This record gives sequence, C-alpha cells and structure tokens, in this order.
Amino acid sequence: MTGRTRPGLRDLTATRGLLYGGDYNPEQWPAETVEHDVVLMVAAGVNLVTVGVFSWSRIEPSPGVRDFDWLDRVLDLLAGAGIAVDLATPTASPPPWLAHDHPDTLPVTADGVRLSQGSRNHFCPSSPTYRAHALEIATDVVARYAGHPAVAMWHVGNEFGQICHCEACAAGFRRWLQARYDDLTGLNTAWATTFWSQAYGRWEEIVPPRAAPYLINPTQRLDYRRFCSDTLLELYTAQRDVIRTVAQATPITTNFMGFFPHVDYWSWAGELDVISDDSYPDPADPDAPVLAALTHDLMRSLAGGPWLLMEQAVSAVNWREHNPPKSPGRMRADALRAIAHGSDGVLSFQWRASAAGAERFHSAMLPHAGPDTRLHRSVRALGADLAALAPVAGSQIRARVAIAFDWSSWWAAEEPGGPSTRLRVLPQMLSWYRPLWRRGLAVDVVHPEADLTSYDLVIAPQLHLVTDAAVANLRAYSAAGGTLALGPFSAVADADAAIRTGAFPAPFADLLGAGGEEWCPLPDGGAALVLDGHRYAVHTWAERLEASSAVVLGTFVGADLDGAPAAVRSPDGRLLYLAAVGGDDLLEAWVATCLDAAGVTPSGIVAQPPPGVEHAVRGDHTFVFNHTGARVSVPLTRACRDVLTGTDHPHAADVPADGSVVLIERQP
Amino acid sequence: MTGRTRPGLRDLTATRGLLYGGDYNPEQWPAETVEHDVVLMVAAGVNLVTVGVFSWSRIEPSPGVRDFDWLDRVLDLLAGAGIAVDLATPTASPPPWLAHDHPDTLPVTADGVRLSQGSRNHFCPSSPTYRAHALEIATDVVARYAGHPAVAMWHVGNEFGQICHCEACAAGFRRWLQARYDDLTGLNTAWATTFWSQAYGRWEEIVPPRAAPYLINPTQRLDYRRFCSDTLLELYTAQRDVIRTVAQATPITTNFMGFFPHVDYWSWAGELDVISDDSYPDPADPDAPVLAALTHDLMRSLAGGPWLLMEQAVSAVNWREHNPPKSPGRMRADALRAIAHGSDGVLSFQWRASAAGAERFHSAMLPHAGPDTRLHRSVRALGADLAALAPVAGSQIRARVAIAFDWSSWWAAEEPGGPSTRLRVLPQMLSWYRPLWRRGLAVDVVHPEADLTSYDLVIAPQLHLVTDAAVANLRAYSAAGGTLALGPFSAVADADAAIRTGAFPAPFADLLGAGGEEWCPLPDGGAALVLDGHRYAVHTWAERLEASSAVVLGTFVGADLDGAPAAVRSPDGRLLYLAAVGGDDLLEAWVATCLDAAGVTPSGIVAQPPPGVEHAVRGDHTFVFNHTGARVSVPLTRACRDVLTGTDHPHAADVPADGSVVLIERQP
Amino acid sequence: MTGRTRPGLRDLTATRGLLYGGDYNPEQWPAETVEHDVVLMVAAGVNLVTVGVFSWSRIEPSPGVRDFDWLDRVLDLLAGAGIAVDLATPTASPPPWLAHDHPDTLPVTADGVRLSQGSRNHFCPSSPTYRAHALEIATDVVARYAGHPAVAMWHVGNEFGQICHCEACAAGFRRWLQARYDDLTGLNTAWATTFWSQAYGRWEEIVPPRAAPYLINPTQRLDYRRFCSDTLLELYTAQRDVIRTVAQATPITTNFMGFFPHVDYWSWAGELDVISDDSYPDPADPDAPVLAALTHDLMRSLAGGPWLLMEQAVSAVNWREHNPPKSPGRMRADALRAIAHGSDGVLSFQWRASAAGAERFHSAMLPHAGPDTRLHRSVRALGADLAALAPVAGSQIRARVAIAFDWSSWWAAEEPGGPSTRLRVLPQMLSWYRPLWRRGLAVDVVHPEADLTSYDLVIAPQLHLVTDAAVANLRAYSAAGGTLALGPFSAVADADAAIRTGAFPAPFADLLGAGGEEWCPLPDGGAALVLDGHRYAVHTWAERLEASSAVVLGTFVGADLDGAPAAVRSPDGRLLYLAAVGGDDLLEAWVATCLDAAGVTPSGIVAQPPPGVEHAVRGDHTFVFNHTGARVSVPLTRACRDVLTGTDHPHAADVPADGSVVLIERQP
Repeated sequence: MTGRTRPGLRDLTATRGLLYGGDYNPEQWPAETVEHDVVLMVAAGVNLVTVGVFSWSRIEPSPGVRDFDWLDRVLDLLAGAGIAVDLATPTASPPPWLAHDHPDTLPVTADGVRLSQGSRNHFCPSSPTYRAHALEIATDVVARYAGHPAVAMWHVGNEFGQICHCEACAAGFRRWLQARYDDLTGLNTAWATTFWSQAYGRWEEIVPPRAAPYLINPTQRLDYRRFCSDTLLELYTAQRDVIRTVAQATPITTNFMGFFPHVDYWSWAGELDVISDDSYPDPADPDAPVLAALTHDLMRSLAGGPWLLMEQAVSAVNWREHNPPKSPGRMRADALRAIAHGSDGVLSFQWRASAAGAERFHSAMLPHAGPDTRLHRSVRALGADLAALAPVAGSQIRARVAIAFDWSSWWAAEEPGGPSTRLRVLPQMLSWYRPLWRRGLAVDVVHPEADLTSYDLVIAPQLHLVTDAAVANLRAYSAAGGTLALGPFSAVADADAAIRTGAFPAPFADLLGAGGEEWCPLPDGGAALVLDGHRYAVHTWAERLEASSAVVLGTFVGADLDGAPAAVRSPDGRLLYLAAVGGDDLLEAWVATCLDAAGVTPSGIVAQPPPGVEHAVRGDHTFVFNHTGARVSVPLTRACRDVLTGTDHPHAADVPADGSVVLIERQP
Repeated sequence: MTGRTRPGLRDLTATRGLLYGGDYNPEQWPAETVEHDVVLMVAAGVNLVTVGVFSWSRIEPSPGVRDFDWLDRVLDLLAGAGIAVDLATPTASPPPWLAHDHPDTLPVTADGVRLSQGSRNHFCPSSPTYRAHALEIATDVVARYAGHPAVAMWHVGNEFGQICHCEACAAGFRRWLQARYDDLTGLNTAWATTFWSQAYGRWEEIVPPRAAPYLINPTQRLDYRRFCSDTLLELYTAQRDVIRTVAQATPITTNFMGFFPHVDYWSWAGELDVISDDSYPDPADPDAPVLAALTHDLMRSLAGGPWLLMEQAVSAVNWREHNPPKSPGRMRADALRAIAHGSDGVLSFQWRASAAGAERFHSAMLPHAGPDTRLHRSVRALGADLAALAPVAGSQIRARVAIAFDWSSWWAAEEPGGPSTRLRVLPQMLSWYRPLWRRGLAVDVVHPEADLTSYDLVIAPQLHLVTDAAVANLRAYSAAGGTLALGPFSAVADADAAIRTGAFPAPFADLLGAGGEEWCPLPDGGAALVLDGHRYAVHTWAERLEASSAVVLGTFVGADLDGAPAAVRSPDGRLLYLAAVGGDDLLEAWVATCLDAAGVTPSGIVAQPPPGVEHAVRGDHTFVFNHTGARVSVPLTRACRDVLTGTDHPHAADVPADGSVVLIERQP
Repeated sequence: MTGRTRPGLRDLTATRGLLYGGDYNPEQWPAETVEHDVVLMVAAGVNLVTVGVFSWSRIEPSPGVRDFDWLDRVLDLLAGAGIAVDLATPTASPPPWLAHDHPDTLPVTADGVRLSQGSRNHFCPSSPTYRAHALEIATDVVARYAGHPAVAMWHVGNEFGQICHCEACAAGFRRWLQARYDDLTGLNTAWATTFWSQAYGRWEEIVPPRAAPYLINPTQRLDYRRFCSDTLLELYTAQRDVIRTVAQATPITTNFMGFFPHVDYWSWAGELDVISDDSYPDPADPDAPVLAALTHDLMRSLAGGPWLLMEQAVSAVNWREHNPPKSPGRMRADALRAIAHGSDGVLSFQWRASAAGAERFHSAMLPHAGPDTRLHRSVRALGADLAALAPVAGSQIRARVAIAFDWSSWWAAEEPGGPSTRLRVLPQMLSWYRPLWRRGLAVDVVHPEADLTSYDLVIAPQLHLVTDAAVANLRAYSAAGGTLALGPFSAVADADAAIRTGAFPAPFADLLGAGGEEWCPLPDGGAALVLDGHRYAVHTWAERLEASSAVVLGTFVGADLDGAPAAVRSPDGRLLYLAAVGGDDLLEAWVATCLDAAGVTPSGIVAQPPPGVEHAVRGDHTFVFNHTGARVSVPLTRACRDVLTGTDHPHAADVPADGSVVLIERQP
C-alpha cells in the first residue's frame, strides 16, 4: 500500500456513473430464476449488487466444509452481464451448527438470557469462538473471490450492532478499561465510585451493566457503550485486514445505520474505504424527509465527500408495527434526495422479494407480483434517471454551516436518571436542522473536536458532553471569528459524564456573559418566551439563566421564569445560547437569528421555495422535491434546465404533485 | 366399540332435556355445606355438575397415596339427588410435590424462565415425568368411578393450552418435525433456511422459538404452534383412551376456549364425544354478543350439531383488569344465546363462590351473600326457563352461509414481521360476521378443506394461508356454483407460510380476473372507497389491484389509490374480493352484496328486527334479545307463541328492556 | 436501660430547636471542599447532617480492611462547627467485592434473574453472608464513633425495602410460615390450598411467589409480603441492638418512605426511637400537597408525636420520568408543611450536589452553580425561618378524626385477580382525606386494632382486610359512641384475605342494617347517585346494597343500579357506609355528612380558607399556604401575629402568591 492512495468510491463510479442495484440473495432461488434475474437487472439499469451477506450456512453447511460452486456460478453470471458485485464476508449470521456446538457464541441480554439461533445476528462480539470461525470463513471467501472480475467492492459483515453482556464481554470490558484507565484509581475517579459505595478493589469485580436494583453508574454505562462500539470495530477491522492483504485495490465497506445508537461511527469512519448507509425513512412520518436529509449529511460528513446509499426500500418495510408502501413519486424522491445529499448511488434491500423467511413482506425491486407492475416500472424508470445523472457522481457539496454531534454526548445526554426523559438529542437536532433544510442550505455534521475553520456557523442543539479538547476546539473556533450557537443542556458534562460545575454552560459561561443555575423541565402546559417582539410557546424544557454581560435576545414570560433570559448572545456576538425547547416557529426564528449573526444567506437558484417544497444543491445540480399533492411552480433566481427532461425554465420550474426535478443553471 | 355409535351429548340430554349446572368443587367446603349445596342445586334445577377438575392434590396428597373417600361421599350424594356428574381427570393442576420432586415437569418460557408452582397449570406438556404421573392418577380415578351411577360424562383435564420451551419440548419438536418432513432437506426447504443463513445440518441444531435477537423464522414458529397443539392433543387422547377402555358408553369431553390461539380445535374435534366450550363474553364490551354468537357457531360447527356450554359466568369474572357484573337480563341473554346457537345446556363456573384462593372474586351461581339474593333468584329462574325449553335439546341448525377459518392461517396471518400488526384476524371475521348476525342468519364456521357443498355462500374475511388442498376445495366449490367472498390479505400464503407469488390472491386471480400488486397499510387518516354510489371510509388496510376481466364493484378515491379497484367480482359472478378494511357501514353493504350474489335471504319469523334487537333461529325456536334499555315491539312475519310465558303474538312480540323471549310459530 | 425512658427526638431538639440540614457525603469531595462546606452549612443555619449512608466501600475497600481516618476528620470538623451528626451504619449498599466474592448476597427477581452490582441496594435481605458482613461493619463503625461528640443520632442502613426471591429467602419464608402456622394443616387451611390442587405435604414444597403460569395463591403472596417486611425488620433490629449496647442514650432511627408498599411500618414503629421519613412530593402534581400532608400525618401517627423529615428535595429530583424544579415558594411550603404536620426538622438529600454518579441531577442545598444562586439563597432563608420557629419543636397535634389504614389490608385489596385494578387504596384514602385537609382538620392515621377512644370520627375509605381483632375493636368503638364511616370494598376479607361471606360488609352488616350482594365495577361512562337532593357522578366502582333497618342517605340513579342504596347510615347513626367511588364534589358532601354525624367542626383561627389556600394547626401555630398565583387575604376568627415577620393581623392575614405564613393568636 506504499505510495498509493487508498481505494474508494471513485473506483466504482468512474466508469459506471451513479451506482444502482441492491442486495441480491441468489441462494434463495433456483438457477433459472437467477439467470432471469440477471436479464431483468440489466433491463432495469442495475450495475451493482451486494451478494453473500447471509450465505454462511450455504457456504459452510457443516463445520469446516466449503461449498462455493453455487457462488462461482452467480458471480460468473453477473460478471458476464457487466454487473459489479459488492461481495460480503458472510459473518453477520452464523449457521445453526455454530450456536449448537458453541453456545458461548450466543449473545446474552442484560437479564442474563442467552439468546437462541433461529433469527439472525445471534453472536457475541467478544466470543473468541465466534471470532475464530468468522475469520476463517471470511478468509476463505476472500481467498477464493479476491481476483474475481465481478468483485468491485467488499462488504464486511452486515449492520454491526450486536450488544452482549456475557462473561467474555465482561473480560473484554475489563481489558478495555485497563487500557483506558491504567489503574483502578483512575477508574474509580472517573466513575466517581465513592458515590453509592461502588469503589472497585480488583478488576474482576467489574461487570457489564447488567440488570441491577436501580440506576447503574452512568460512567460505567457510558464506558460500556464505548467498549461495545470498539469491540464491534475490532470485528470489522480483523476482516478488513484479511481482505486488504489480498485485495489492495478493492474498496472495502460495511453498512452503517444512520444515527444508530450502539456504534460511534466517528471512530469507525477512518477504517472504511467507502462510507455506506442503510436508510429507511418511514413513509408514514411526514417528517421523515428531514431526518433522512440530516442522516445523509451525517454520512457525507463521515466520508468527507460522496458516500453510498447501501440499503433502502423501494416501498414498504416489514419491521415497523404498521408499514405503508411508498408511492412511485415518494420512492423516486427518497432516492434522489440521497443523491442530492452526496450519495453516489441507490441500492435497495433487496432485488427480488423473498417468498419465505422473516423478510418476505419487505418490498423489493422485483415484487412478488413480478415485473409487470407499477412498482417495477418505477424501478426501471429510476434506473434510467440515475444513468442520466451520471455526471453527478463524485461531485462535492460545500457547507458553511455545521451541526456538532458526538455519540458519547448522545449517550450521556439520554442516560436514565436525568432531568427529563422527554428531552431527546435527535428530536433536538432535527428541530434546529429543519430551518436549514427548509432553506436548502448545505449542512455538515461535525465531531466537536474536528477542524471547524471552514464553517461560518456551528450549531450544537444539545451537545451535552464536551471533552476538554472539544471545549478548547469550540472556544478557538469562536475566538477565530466563527459563530457558535448552543442549545439547551449543552456543555453540561465532561468526558466521564461528570457535571462541569459552576453556572452552565460552564466552559463557555465566561465568553457568554451569562450562566445557568437550574434546568427546568416544564409542566405539561409549557411556557412561553418573547424573542424579537414575538411570543413563542416553549415546551418540555427551559433553563434559569442569569445574564451579566450577555445581550438578552429573548425573555421568558409567565410563572416562575417570568422575566428570566431565554436566549442570549455574548458581548462579541460570536456565541449564542438558547435556553428552551420550542416548536418549529421558535426554531425558525432562532436559526434565522443564528444565520444572521454568522452572515450566512442562501445563494442558490431556489431562493424562496413554496410551502411543501424541499430542495438541495449538490455541485452544479439543484434537486427539487414537491411534497404536496398538487403541481407547484418554483421561482428561480436564474434560468435553468431540467436535466432529466431537457426542458428550459427561464424563471420558474413546474414540479408535478409528489414529483422531483433536477435542475442545472443554463449556460448563457 | 365395534358395531355401535360413539356416545354423545344425546346420551345426556335424552332424559334430562337441557343441561344446567356448573363446576362444583366440594373439596373446598365442609361436609355440611356440601349437603346444603345439593339441596340448593335441586331447588335451582341443576342436573349436571363438573367435579374434580382441581382435585389432584386432594386425591394424591403425597406421591402414590390415594384418598378417595371424600369424593365417594360427594358422588353418592349427587347421585342420590339425581344430579349427574361430569367427572374430571384431575390432571390440569399437579400437586406441589410433583413440582418440587420433579422440576422438569415445570414449564419454561421463551426467555428460559422455569415457572413455579403456586398457581395452576404448571406443567410442561412434553415432560415424560408429568405424563406418567398424570396418566397414573387419571387411570385410578377412572377405575374407581367408571361405574358410579352419578358419572354421566368424563372431562379430561381442563382448558388445555400450556406452552413450554424446555429441552423436552425441543426433543419432542424434533420428533414431530422428522415425522412431518422425513429429512432435513424437506425441513430446510419448507423453512426456507437459505434466508439468514439458517440451514440445519443435524436435527439437534433445531430449537423451539426461544428468545432471539430479532424476528424468528416464521415457518419455525408456525410449526412450533402446530407441534404445541398436537402435543397437548396427545395428553388428551392418552387420558381419553384410558377412559374409553373401561367406560365405553360414557361420553368424553374436554373444555375448549373459543377462538383460543394456542390449540387447533379442528384437529381435536374428532377426538371428543362432546364438544364443550368455556365462554366469557365481556359485559363491558357492547360487541361481546356478536363475538359470543360467532364463537358458539364455531363450537356447533366443530361438533357438527349440538354442543355444550361448559363454563360461563353468571355475573363478573375476576381476571380482566376491570370486571363489571352482569344484570340478570344480561345473564339470561348470554345463556339463551348459547342455546339458540346450538348448545344443549348452560354450565357456569362455579356453583358456590370460593371464599378464598385466586378466584374468590369470580361470580358463582351461589354468591358469597347467599341464596336470598337477586343473583341467585335469577339463577333459579333460568333453571326453570331451561326446563321449559327441554324440547330444544338435540335440535339442529341449518346454515346456508359459512365462514372459512383455520388456526394455521390465523397463526401465519398475525406472525410478526408482516405488513401491519393492526390487521387482525378475529376483528376481521367479526366485521364480516356482524351483518349476518344482525340478520339472524345461521352461519357455520368451516375449515377451508371441508365439504362446502351445502352452502350457498362461503366468506373468508382473512384466510391468509391456504393449503393446496384448500385452494382446490374452494375452487371446486366455486366451480360447482357456490359463491365465495374473499377479504383482504387472503390466499396469500401456502401451508408453510410462504408467499404464493404472482398477483394476489394468486391461486384465485385467474378466476377473479384481477390481481393485486401491493398491500397498502393505510396512514392514520385512512382512505375511502365508493361502492354502489355510496362513499365509505376505509381504515388500516387497502390493496392495490389491477382488474382485467373482473367487474369492478367499488373504487378507491383519493391519494395514491385514487381510481384503483377496491371491490371486484369475477366475470361469472361466483367469486368476490374486497380489498379494504372498513367500518360497519361498509361491511353491511358489502355482505349484502355477497348475500345477493349467492341468493341468500332471511326467511324466519323476524324479518326486520328493530335496532338493538338480536335474534337467532334454532329448529322451531326463535330467540329474540333486546339489548336496549326500553321495551321494544318486534314485528313478526307469522303468528307466534312465547314458549316461556305462553302468550300469543299474532303480529309482533313485545320484549322488555334487557329481556329475551323464545318464540315458536303458532300452529294454525 | 432499666428505669429510664428511651432516647428520642426531644434529645435532639431540646437544645437545637428545629433541625435543619441534610445528607452529607464527604467521601465524594476533597478535604478543602469539605472544610468549605462546613463554613457554608453554618451560614445556612444547618445543625444536623446525615453522614456515612453510602460509605461501606470507602471504609472497607477490601474484605476486612478498615479506613476510618477520613471519617474521623469529617466528624471532628462537624463537631467543631457545632453541627450534629446522624451517623449511618453503612449497610445499605455493599462494596463490589461482596457481590463478586459472594454472589449469594445478590437479590433475585421473581423471574429468577440474579441482579448485579453497579447500582445500590444489591443485597438479599435473607442472605446469611450479607447479614454477617453488614453486622461486622456496623459493629466496627458503632464501636469507633459511639462516643464521638458529633454523633447525636444513629441512622441504620437506608430506605429498607429490598425484595428477593432466592433460595435463602425461600428457606426463610418456610421458617416464618412454621412460626405462623405451627403445622401444614394450619397453612393449608389459611391458604385454602384445596383450590387449584395446591395442598402442601412437606414444608420444602413451598416457594416464594415466583413467576408462575397464572394468578398465584393470594394468601401465599400476602404472607410473602409480611415475611419480606419482617425480614427487613430483622436487619434493622440486629444493627439497632449493636448500637443500643454501646450507645444507650443516643436515639436510633432509619428512614421510612411514606406509604411504601413493601414494608409494614406499623410493625416497625415501636423499634425506632425517632420516626423519620423521606418525602418527595412531585412538583408537577397539583395534588401533591394533599398526599404529602396525609403522609406526614401517617408519620406523626407512627411516632405518636413529633417525627423528623429525614429526606426531601429542595428542588427537582432525578428519578421520575420528568423532573420539574420547585420554586423557592414551593420549596418553603413543602418544608413548613412538614413542620405543621409534626416534623421537628427539615433535612434534604443532599447538602452538596454530586458532580458525578447516578444522582448528579438530583437537586441539593448547594447546587452545581454554587452558593450565589437563587436556590441557595432560599435555602439560607429557610434556615433562618426554622430558627425563628424553634418554639414549635416538640409541640403536639390533637386530632379528633382518624383514618384507619393497614399494610396487610392494602396488600390484599390490590392483589391481582380482584374485581378491578382501577380501585386503588391510596387514591381512595386521598379522596376521603382531601375534604378534611381542606378544612385544616388534624387527622391521625390509625391501625384498625389501635385504641380509638380519643377520636370522634374514624373513617376507613377502603379497609379491605379486617382481622377479627380489628372487627371487635371497630365494633367496640362504635358501641362506645364513636362514629365509623366505611368506604366501598371495606371489611371484605379476613386476616388470610379470605372473603367474610354473607352480605357485605359482613362483620358490620348487622349494625348497619344493610348488606351488599355484588361489587359493581362501572363501565367507562360511570353512573350517578343522589345524596341530600344533589346529584353526583360516580365512577370506577359501585356496590349493590339492600337496606333493611338502615337509613338510606343516597340512592343510585340510572341503569341496573337505579334506586338501589348508595349511602346508608345505621339506625343508631354511628355507622355510615358509602357504596361508590366519586369525585371531589361527592366526597366533599359525604365527608361533611360524616363530620356532622360525629359532631366535628373546625375551631381554628382560619375558618373559611379562600380557594387554593391550605392551612394546618400545630399547637399554638397555624401554618397558611397560598397555592395560587396571586396574593390572598385569609379571614381570621381571632387576631393573630405573623411569627416570622412580627406583623399583627387583627381580622385577616395577607399571604403572597406562592407564599406561606405562620400565625399565632395574639395574646390580648
């Protein structure tokens, strides 16, 4: 690997343009169906499929046996059709024999229940037995197919996220803690074990956060979350290294799951060649496009550029309580939104709908009813659209606004035993992000210790935990002229989830010229604040601040908070703080205030999107989505052309009901 | 048993008329109370009591000991008073010593928790130890009392329904699977174990569906349900055979529990001489009479004629969260409804209210407050009514309409991981049954593979799973001129719960001239359809159909389904399909359409029941129930006589508020 | 201890007046912080702190080691500042090494899950190993500090309430049962084990009420609750006896938890020198002041005089789902209410807010933001108020009204398998207490077997279980001229939770001249009754009564209960019975009827409190609380002086919004 750049997504898209396809599980089908599938794939414009994710028991039907013939045939067939393969190490779901012969490979709940085979993902990430078997099968798969012409990318395991509480995990946790704290004094200090008589005298006294009589030590829980994420990462890197040894030029990925609570993707991102994500916005949730956009921005930020939508659904999923389908327009919008936010492809789970098994009711690109269906026709149409959008592949997005987000902070903020279970990090992030999304502004998601110098505005809607390094970084950013906006319950805790005492946000109160004394979860009726002469309802949460040198921008009205500052700005104008949780109207006004303070204004071709119209800019392309049930006319600041239809729009673009268009500025 | 008919309910009713009584647990009371009880029973018209259900620990206080004296005295006393006994094998609840000495007899949850003694039914149905002890005590009880003059029926165990996940069950499950599939290839194919890497290489790798990380293989779950039902049936038949050996002429029963989710009564019915049922309609549920009627129809269908209401409550139960009592009118209506739908008796749990134990707050025929109470007076009055209705015993009900229902289909339809947890089989059946019930039409419940030739209309509100035999049977029925009406999500799966691919309902789409492409669980606001010019709200569920040759009877309006067919009829008019879930107004109109198509019209003496009036016809007798709070006049098509009061009604029958009357046509 | 009175609260208050302070956990802080704390305590008027509750692992960092130096220094420092110490035996939370070395010390759930260390209270109360270690550490702590000048009170453990289901508990339960029942015949009779085949032949067959298939024997459950309470009491008394041996003159306490469901405080009260309680009224619950007042009355009744508020929160707690803070006015009112209802002090959890650990978000007297905060200023002001109220210490409250309450009755009344889970004892007590509280009447809480001769009125809102002794006691009270008012579902069960058969309330029906036949949990719409010409809605529950000689005071209207008696009075007027559950309007009218019947009228200086104003009388002092958001004028029957401001009020006292005042009658 000396002297060359690591392989990446560009290796895939350079010749193919945007990637299109999905998971393909040929082991479920007879040979003739597979042959027909390949024909249908070509007709639909498919150029990449993920193969082998759940093939372990097919490849290794009994311990040590190998059956590769079927897979040879599938890969040859795909190669012959020019369809690239993202080949999986089949380690996500072990065969039943592993569970039967080695019960220690099975995961254990916090209650001590050892889970069974019969589902999937039934492994303990710490189990040496599982690890050994997984690495063996991965090694053999890689050895056999590393040179196969179809294999264009490697896919390690699937959706890493298993949590276990067994003795092997306990032992691993202790080793991890020894590495973090050196000695028990360090651990006892970090965990504040003088509280509740928890001081540890020997490492072996420490256990995972299993079922206990009452609240468990929050730092123990926080560290266990970190340990679980790191342990899963070890599983990934061990397989990644096997691949890298024999396939230096092939990009390697594993599929992330958006804002997944059990894995810190910041620590993973550097280990992947391609950041890929599984994204399943809920068709029943009108807010799903906002969350999807934010999640896509997270992935692009993890990648530092284009990423890949590895899994999505063309219509319904089967794992929510109630699973409405998508309309063709919705399906197309979900796909194009990912492209607009930096994905270089659209892959779906899965190509052909399973007739049996636990996911038989999950939609697929080729539904049970066959190719002559509305759904499959729209799948083919999307393939054509993506082919036409090939120039988008590899193009970048430049953001002037960033949202600070960190898994440790999320974990600490929602730990039981806090002021309120109703204050949640993702809803807070979403409420601050929505006004940016509505403006079509590009937004990066950043780690609070990352280089922030390229941003004009950094917002931290609920950055609860801030390490000392993060504090220094954010203060330096502000000192250098950057504008920082903190939301409630931010900068409360340190790296160990201990309170940073003093008036909050303690590490910034001096800059802010204001300090908080008390968190005030609000009664059901909520409260109100006045900002810039307008009154806004606040709910769930408020905070009691005292302002010294700060400029008071907003003030609470009514009850015990009457007259107290609700929103303040530092004397130098570079630090803003909102001490309340509110509705969309409040956040719209507040984010506008923050953007004004940072001098950020939208400058794209869509300046005033009509209600219900979403847009996003990627490089030269502007994507416009009409979420209303009627045709809308979107005014443009400059003359544009519709890339997919070729239509020119001098002043405004018509977008059909439930429709999406892609525009580029018309060259004069 | 050569050359003679199996004993049956007629052996009991021929000399006694309708049966009246209940569970009697004399072991709870001193001898003088028992003597007084028998006097009170006679005064109330009681002619049958169930004895011994929970007497195991009384008969066998320590392992191997027998104490029968107390039971001798009770049976002698009852025989002397002319009260027949339905004597139980006391196997439903083992003594504490069995649990203590043999923990392997205790059931284990899916989480691996071994349940304890202290309640009831604490046994694993697969446990060889439990089976051996149960059969021993049953054998001795049968040997002692088979010839006792009081014993008119045998009652095997009680409410069979125990589910366990222990190692003995795992072993039994494997044996059951070997019998079903011969070899692992058969099982792996049926279970589609290529999905999620679940292929089994050895039988011992297979376990019950215990707690697992995610969705469990649906066919594994389906087969485990079948196995559990069959295993319980083995317990029943083993004891049944003991009885049959020594008591050839005495009918044998065990009490069913209506639409009980854990046992497939179709496979049981042939093994019982008398079909008996426990029925506890919820007094707080205004819809309870409809469900009770449907359940009674199920029992009559299982029996192929009269059945027996083995348990009900004269007033409140104690096992719901909130247990309102019944008014005397409600109590009488619940009893007479069972008679109207084919029961040849009314037995209640229990005769005398327990003063202690877990069911002390369950109502009884003789309440805590004693015989001089409103409740007990109404119990005596009902005894007199039933005596007067003796001629009803043994009479038949002729149905022209049937509802197809099958436990495997129910299990498959509600398996987790489907399109929606909100679509439930029983509510769907109830919504289609209600219009039939409102018309007083007799309805049979049929297995989809049963002989359907006697019906003009077969409805299948949500017959999700259809075996190949069921498909052939239903197609033959339609081909022979029968009218078949399918509800949504019907005929989707095969015997293994695998999807029947192609446009749905795949096995009938050719006949229908229409096919479905996508299930559409609806957002909360629902949707609408237009049928015969009227608009109806639909909720929860719709389906996207394409009609080729089918006649479109109804069409969706609004949103993504606008204009799509919602209700269709085959070109020959013999097959109807409704692609939506709706309210009572929609089903009223739709079922009317189906009845019209089949040429079924009500022909009884009550043609136009006023609102709130229920009626049902059994042989010559018409039962009328007034659910309103005011007296109503029910118009009659022919002159009638009130059987219980002797009053003649030339044109209309007055029914008091909360009252019930029984009419026969007046002979001119 | 011969010839002298037991030590008590007066030993503490005689020289100090009212006690003020809280839990202090110096092991969490460096030495210099502790020194600063003591200075701040003095400034706030603190005179008592509880030390050492969670110090076991600090004192015994590894088995058998002792580290007392840090505690020596803290106690010396406090002694030097004149702050008394309530020193804990540190047995509430064992060190991790105990759990690791002796897993048998860990508690087990009903499901068989052995809980882990990492939280607190992780011990099985029956474990001989835990008991031995706890007694050892307690003995050493007591030996070292019994003579320390700072130690003014001993605090045994903390919030006893652990429940376990392990084998050690099973063995203990059997011993407890042997003591209660002598032989198995006694147990089998009391538990009514003839029901459901539960007869026990050997003691070892008996287990705790662990997870079981269905309802567990209610008497088994009731006895297990009694056993658990008694077992915890053994833990307390063993440590108490260690202290008493070496510290005869120092009062001993442990902190109760109000109406705590797992411990019968009636059986504990006699074993404590000082009754102390932890009280955490929910700031989000407008009804919290009523429940707090009732709970304080319980504590005063357990003590037979002044008691001590051992823990409360100056603002938010952290263990509810949503934790609003208290305003300073609310904080002051909660403190003064406790004084008004008999507490001789106000202690809070905790002095200094933890920066880490599971309770870091619990408010404290010294918040994270430091002493220069609104919260801490109000803490200091309260210290000054309490100092000014020193004369209140030791003063008594004379009640003419009592509420009968008993833990066994509570347990039996809410046992699963009853008529309704919606009928709950505490809400019923609260609904009857509220009209008394609104009048400012002193109310004692009494055990139903206690001496009642000093009361004019005894109410029993839902005294479900009455022992034979309680029946005799209540009948004697009524016979002697006392007025007894029973609420619904009272006097239903005997000491074994068995029904007292006959018309209910069976042991009183003869006196009442009326008897009940059926409990009638009401449908959601409820019902109504007419009392004294007014109509009142009733909900949840009604009962069907028949009156013989009783005077019918109220009658149901509508539906099946129409015309039935709803409220009756015995012919002699000394026994009243209400057969319904209603809203505040009904209880206001009904309690007024009861007070009239008993001749009880308020006679204090506040006769007609305005809406939203609470008051309570203790000795010479009348405490008035304004719960409204506006200043109110409270009319006085006699001229008064405000004790804290010195202001004279000839006719009325002004109380500010959210404010509290303390008045004494002005001596002419």
